[in-house]
Amino acid sequence: MNMNVAERQGDCHSQLLSSHNARDLLNSVDAFLFDCDGVIWKGDTLIDGVSQTLDMLRSKGKKLVFVTNNSTKSRRQYAKKFQSLGISVSEDEIFCSSFAAAMFLKVNNFPREKKVYVIGEEGILEELQLAGFTGLGGPEDGKKTVQLKPNCLFEHDKTVGAVVVGLDQYINYYKLQYGTLCIRENLGCLFIATNQDAVGHMTDLQEWPGAGCMVAAICGSTQKEPIVVGKPSTFLMDFLQQKFQISCSKMCMVGDRLDTDVLFGKNAGCKTLLVFSGVTSHSTLHDPSNSIEPDYCTNKLSDILELLGP
Amino acid sequence: MNMNVAERQGDCHSQLLSSHNARDLLNSVDAFLFDCDGVIWKGDTLIDGVSQTLDMLRSKGKKLVFVTNNSTKSRRQYAKKFQSLGISVSEDEIFCSSFAAAMFLKVNNFPREKKVYVIGEEGILEELQLAGFTGLGGPEDGKKTVQLKPNCLFEHDKTVGAVVVGLDQYINYYKLQYGTLCIRENLGCLFIATNQDAVGHMTDLQEWPGAGCMVAAICGSTQKEPIVVGKPSTFLMDFLQQKFQISCSKMCMVGDRLDTDVLFGKNAGCKTLLVFSGVTSHSTLHDPSNSIEPDYCTNKLSDILELLGP
Repeated sequence: MNMNVAERQGDCHSQLLSSHNARDLLNSVDAFLFDCDGVIWKGDTLIDGVSQTLDMLRSKGKKLVFVTNNSTKSRRQYAKKFQSLGISVSEDEIFCSSFAAAMFLKVNNFPREKKVYVIGEEGILEELQLAGFTGLGGPEDGKKTVQLKPNCLFEHDKTVGAVVVGLDQYINYYKLQYGTLCIRENLGCLFIATNQDAVGHMTDLQEWPGAGCMVAAICGSTQKEPIVVGKPSTFLMDFLQQKFQISCSKMCMVGDRLDTDVLFGKNAGCKTLLVFSGVTSHSTLHDPSNSIEPDYCTNKLSDILELLGP
Repeated sequence: MNMNVAERQGDCHSQLLSSHNARDLLNSVDAFLFDCDGVIWKGDTLIDGVSQTLDMLRSKGKKLVFVTNNSTKSRRQYAKKFQSLGISVSEDEIFCSSFAAAMFLKVNNFPREKKVYVIGEEGILEELQLAGFTGLGGPEDGKKTVQLKPNCLFEHDKTVGAVVVGLDQYINYYKLQYGTLCIRENLGCLFIATNQDAVGHMTDLQEWPGAGCMVAAICGSTQKEPIVVGKPSTFLMDFLQQKFQISCSKMCMVGDRLDTDVLFGKNAGCKTLLVFSGVTSHSTLHDPSNSIEPDYCTNKLSDILELLGP
């Protein structure tokens, strides 16, 4: 049976946010979980009306939590970024995938005497250190080069027991070889991906390759699949629930990505709100090939504020 | 039904090369197709007995052809490498994946006014130029850096109509963003992979991430699959046959990889000989998960010489 696009679009069960259902949503949840990139900001630019919307939600007693797959910063660095944009957020309210990687190792009793090789940026190294682990690699190895010459033997640390891969703007062949050797040759070495986002708004003007690019490179050379700790994996949800004692059904996940944010929310049993201020367009949501449907969708976060009125 | 490994190994139909079947093989084929890395050399070191074996095959009137997935060199550069190792091979006998990429564009009438962005090394750029195409990128872009800062707009050439990705020891975020933007934003832009080898003996002492690593990175950021022109794709076989007028059933493909060399030979209907002097071990061949079986297997190329005797 062939259906045309218009008919298929009718199949999408997402409700456009209205003043009516926005009120229902607000009344039915105790916590809002926000993705950051494409929802709160684009690059280093705050999206219009975000600050006022967050203030309104706090004034109504809602718990606010920020769940981001971007691993370049630590919780501390994110709190600082929020502050620089004029928004007060505490470290405890931030759940970034750099933190998730460190917590994954902690809850799995990763031995303290083993090391962690990082293909990624400062945020991962900082979270590893805060959790009591020894990180290697990261930005420092971005300056290192290799020479494919006879008798050149690339040495790697045999005590590396995990390789964490996230977004790395200083990716190079040295790091690819280092991570590959650890995963292929160190017995039982874990391969942890902060996330697998294809691209992200690393700057306000355009998208750039995301962690999914670096993770895929290591999959390509090792022929192994990673453990993913960021969205849509529900690993972080356990921490959220433990911390805030709120049932998932009383949470609403707000994000700009179907395959990470909305799926993360749905996997956990949260309500979900898709905003079109990031990477997902109306046509992507309604495309017949898309099977991930948020409960609600709207152009941007501050629509909630406008719809609820003064 | 559970079978133990020994029973499953009995299922493998590959014959160990013997003086008997080596003679049969020699009598039944007119041409030998050789992979280079792991068969002829490791890095820059010739594998023992290769030179004498090639001499013997030539003396018996066999046509010799070298088919390599390594895209870092052009045919001209490969002929030079053979010469430096004391083996005389003409450019016409060399079919490398850098040449395959250029030929793919040629046979598909890629418009001369469009440009080709290269994530890879000198060999691809040289072959593109010889075929009359304009290449961009390559080693030169290995020195370029990006800054993820506000108002930074990464510009790419809108006339790029193809991105060719091969092994690139100078891979960086600049190239990943450039290739990603071309494939995502230039209408109809082709995504061509020289090959998808996970690793290769880029040096004699160890394996390094192969083109499969860089290709996977671009798949990760573009969410697109490439056109593969190297082994196991049979694209090069058309050229071989046109050039040498030899039926595939009269050819024997000799290689060290199951998923590229042996599969390439089998896909084309050639006889296949696996050598254990490269990346594949006996246990990999006999592993129950392996479904690619060469007709023959032996430790190294020069076994042919020894088995046939003086």
